[in-house]
Amino acid sequence: MTAVKIGVIGAGTVAGGVFHVLLRNQAEITRRAGCKLHIVAVSSRTRSKIDNLLTTLNANDVEVVADPFAVVRNPNIEVVCELIGGTTLARELVLEAIAHGKHVVTANKALLAVHGNEIFAKAREKGVIVAFEAAVAGGIPIIKAVREGLSANRIQWVSGIINGTTNFILSEMRSKGLDFGTVLAEAQRLGYAEADPTFDVEGVDAAHKLTLLSAIAFGIPVQFDKAYTEGITKLTAQDIRYAEELGYRIKLLGITRRHPEGVELRVHPTLIPSKRLIANVEGAMNAVLVKGDAVGATLYYGAGAGAEPTASAVVADLVDVTRLLNADPSHRVPSLAFQHDALDNAPILPISEVHTAYYLRIRVADQPGVLADITRILADQQISLDAVLQKEAELFEPASQGVAQTDLILLTHQTQEKLMNAALEKIQALSSVLAPVTRIRMEELN
Amino acid sequence: MTAVKIGVIGAGTVAGGVFHVLLRNQAEITRRAGCKLHIVAVSSRTRSKIDNLLTTLNANDVEVVADPFAVVRNPNIEVVCELIGGTTLARELVLEAIAHGKHVVTANKALLAVHGNEIFAKAREKGVIVAFEAAVAGGIPIIKAVREGLSANRIQWVSGIINGTTNFILSEMRSKGLDFGTVLAEAQRLGYAEADPTFDVEGVDAAHKLTLLSAIAFGIPVQFDKAYTEGITKLTAQDIRYAEELGYRIKLLGITRRHPEGVELRVHPTLIPSKRLIANVEGAMNAVLVKGDAVGATLYYGAGAGAEPTASAVVADLVDVTRLLNADPSHRVPSLAFQHDALDNAPILPISEVHTAYYLRIRVADQPGVLADITRILADQQISLDAVLQKEAELFEPASQGVAQTDLILLTHQTQEKLMNAALEKIQALSSVLAPVTRIRMEELN
Repeated sequence: MTAVKIGVIGAGTVAGGVFHVLLRNQAEITRRAGCKLHIVAVSSRTRSKIDNLLTTLNANDVEVVADPFAVVRNPNIEVVCELIGGTTLARELVLEAIAHGKHVVTANKALLAVHGNEIFAKAREKGVIVAFEAAVAGGIPIIKAVREGLSANRIQWVSGIINGTTNFILSEMRSKGLDFGTVLAEAQRLGYAEADPTFDVEGVDAAHKLTLLSAIAFGIPVQFDKAYTEGITKLTAQDIRYAEELGYRIKLLGITRRHPEGVELRVHPTLIPSKRLIANVEGAMNAVLVKGDAVGATLYYGAGAGAEPTASAVVADLVDVTRLLNADPSHRVPSLAFQHDALDNAPILPISEVHTAYYLRIRVADQPGVLADITRILADQQISLDAVLQKEAELFEPASQGVAQTDLILLTHQTQEKLMNAALEKIQALSSVLAPVTRIRMEELN
Repeated sequence: MTAVKIGVIGAGTVAGGVFHVLLRNQAEITRRAGCKLHIVAVSSRTRSKIDNLLTTLNANDVEVVADPFAVVRNPNIEVVCELIGGTTLARELVLEAIAHGKHVVTANKALLAVHGNEIFAKAREKGVIVAFEAAVAGGIPIIKAVREGLSANRIQWVSGIINGTTNFILSEMRSKGLDFGTVLAEAQRLGYAEADPTFDVEGVDAAHKLTLLSAIAFGIPVQFDKAYTEGITKLTAQDIRYAEELGYRIKLLGITRRHPEGVELRVHPTLIPSKRLIANVEGAMNAVLVKGDAVGATLYYGAGAGAEPTASAVVADLVDVTRLLNADPSHRVPSLAFQHDALDNAPILPISEVHTAYYLRIRVADQPGVLADITRILADQQISLDAVLQKEAELFEPASQGVAQTDLILLTHQTQEKLMNAALEKIQALSSVLAPVTRIRMEELN
């Protein structure tokens, strides 16, 4: 039986998962692939961890090298698995691997969201594959579903919970009524959040993944720099509770939608109806909704991170690459799902152009005419209301400045963000509005 | 630009969907496939319907023939789309198409569940593809997910709502408290159920689909004749209500699970915890849970039937076939996901060997000692209880035969079906048990 020779760059969590899965399931994988997937070399900055792993797995035939460039230049290696993350060294290594005619499998969303256009172009020139199932939603085969499974469709939108850390935090905030800071600390203790959680909680990681989904859904270049990104750090337990009272859950969603004028590409906290399946995705799990014109709405759910779920996607890519290793490139699915000469130059719409509905929480003085003033301002911008919830004044913190306060919660119908911005500016200027207005976008997802 | 020449057999609902999707999305599909998918001929027993369709779609270049064999023998055609259903004529046509060296795309679950081994063997001999994404769960790309997306995993089990008609009926029974017959009549009126609903409501259609999922999940031949099949016709609104009180929903599930001793392959009504996402799949929608050893549980949700969702899967297969039309067969994914010489001969376990938990509803005389007698019988078979719900006697129909009656509802822990059968025989023989015991299997799906 022939063997495909694989080189792994990196010896961290995901690389460990790849070793474990590939060796544990070698017989099953070989039954599928028809040939053996053989890791011949791995690069690691330090020896001890990788040596322990290889000893544990009885993998005596894997060469360990310190220099990752020794892997990408190794003439014996046919496929390079890039698992170090980051966008600088990883870019150099991937480009060098491609230049040496090697296929590449990567889990690196940041790399492809930022440098994907360059990398895919070089890969096409050299006739090699760059596969990245593991870069989005971990073990869920969402890249394959969108790129191949839904290829009959004109895809209308994709909307997903694609960051497990923030979904864990939001789930805990909701179920336990805790605030963001408390839950973040708990998530860090449990290993669900990094010591520096910025990329996750500010939505950057989700925006990287959404950029890739948007490209393969609509056939456009990756354009991470145009994505609108808003994290969950300012969400309060109170907003989560009010949303629940109104029949909604708050999730950090990545949303990309095609319009005649361009493509929406946005990550932000979003109210979604509690009855939707995706609203009930809890903890660190991921789920992606894809709406196609023929198939309707489809949902894909699973573990979005973790060593073995991510390895599941990496190894599935390795099997795919193995099948098409020496095939004519015309037999392969293009990296971005569409033929490279058929990519669309539709612009990414700025957030001010986006149409969506809104949840507004307005802390007001409990006095006559406030609701009339606010709803008049909204009406002047052609914004109509879907629901109003006025809390009893006595339920809230004691009167300050001699004025009783209350929270006014409004749900609007769809409008354009710039109209909402104009309305909010006027609402904020009302003397009866006592604090910065909280504004959270809302999607029906149907 | 080159074009792939497709022949369609059948002019029913799904064929109509394929024409609509392929023509409406031709530009988008061509952007992906890199070549045009061109239907050159269609066979139809009657002219008027297909003529109307082609006129509507402005598809003047499609040849309409009465004889389906004229399509499969047409030397100009490269891919045959079999969309007539059934297992007799469809089998002859598919085998004839293969004999003529044509690739086949089919939505015919019954055909492949019953004659798949023969058909896949002939296809392999001739080096052609038989693709069948549309045969399971309509537009959900579940075949691709299991066959390719999860190829790194040793799959442990697959469990799915794979018949929309029965899920619609069960959803309506639950939400409206109606009985089976009433909802079936409504479903027939709405077009969700056929005039003869036997294949759907008796679980046969689900068993066809499950047979295919089982084969591609575990690498075994299709063995529909060994599947255990139990429909929903005997379910009562009362059982659905009791299940709900205990925190469960009843769904018709197809379940296939691998054990060291063999493979479970069973379709039956099943209690599942209400909090599981799959328990909340309502109406005619489908959803499939797949548990892999690396990825954990993943869920795939979408429309399981209907013209356009099914066409979405058919056309996705056409795009896949188009890419690999003239490729060496080694570049293709094997029909049953595993190399043909690596199929496993694990036996399908008879239902008596299956391990599962149970919901029991026992109509008993409301007298002392009844619960003790029943639980003693269960204990003697090593069956332990998870929950007991005894309804107040006065809530039920008036006393008959001078004895007040009540319903005793028991949830058991996992046991083997043959032990439960032995216990039920003894319970049924108790003089205090007044009616046939209702037994519904129960799965945690975690």
